[in-house]
Amino acid sequence: PGWELSDDATRIRRSFKFKNFAAAQAFVNQVGELAEQEQHHPEISFGWGHAEVEIWTHAIGGLHENDFILAAKINEAT
Amino acid sequence: PGWELSDDATRIRRSFKFKNFAAAQAFVNQVGELAEQEQHHPEISFGWGHAEVEIWTHAIGGLHENDFILAAKINEAT
Repeated sequence: PGWELSDDATRIRRSFKFKNFAAAQAFVNQVGELAEQEQHHPEISFGWGHAEVEIWTHAIGGLHENDFILAAKINEAT
Repeated sequence: PGWELSDDATRIRRSFKFKNFAAAQAFVNQVGELAEQEQHHPEISFGWGHAEVEIWTHAIGGLHENDFILAAKINEAT
């Protein structure tokens, strides 16, 4: 839940809100740990109070089962 | 050095390359520490092997001395 499909259906992304910069950064580090565990790496943007995560499979330029596995693990971390 | 001005001259940004995801994330955490020290927070994007940092002063919608101080400190960290 919370993930939206890009207009061209090649990526999924989700936005997250936080109470300050440190909380956003802590979340980003959690996402990074999951990415390393899964050996599947999203694009992450963040700043004061927010973060955005975008996931796709570079090798196929689109979405694969692994993308949804990582998204589910990120959801569990929130 | 290495920073470029946005087309509308309201932001500065710089791109950084890394050897993998973990190195990019380690750099992002360094930037985050500097941001907390300065109480001046950039927007950060990163993924496998790369990071982008964008700095501006939200309160004035443009650039202020503090932006260049943070940029200089980030340069020292690289």
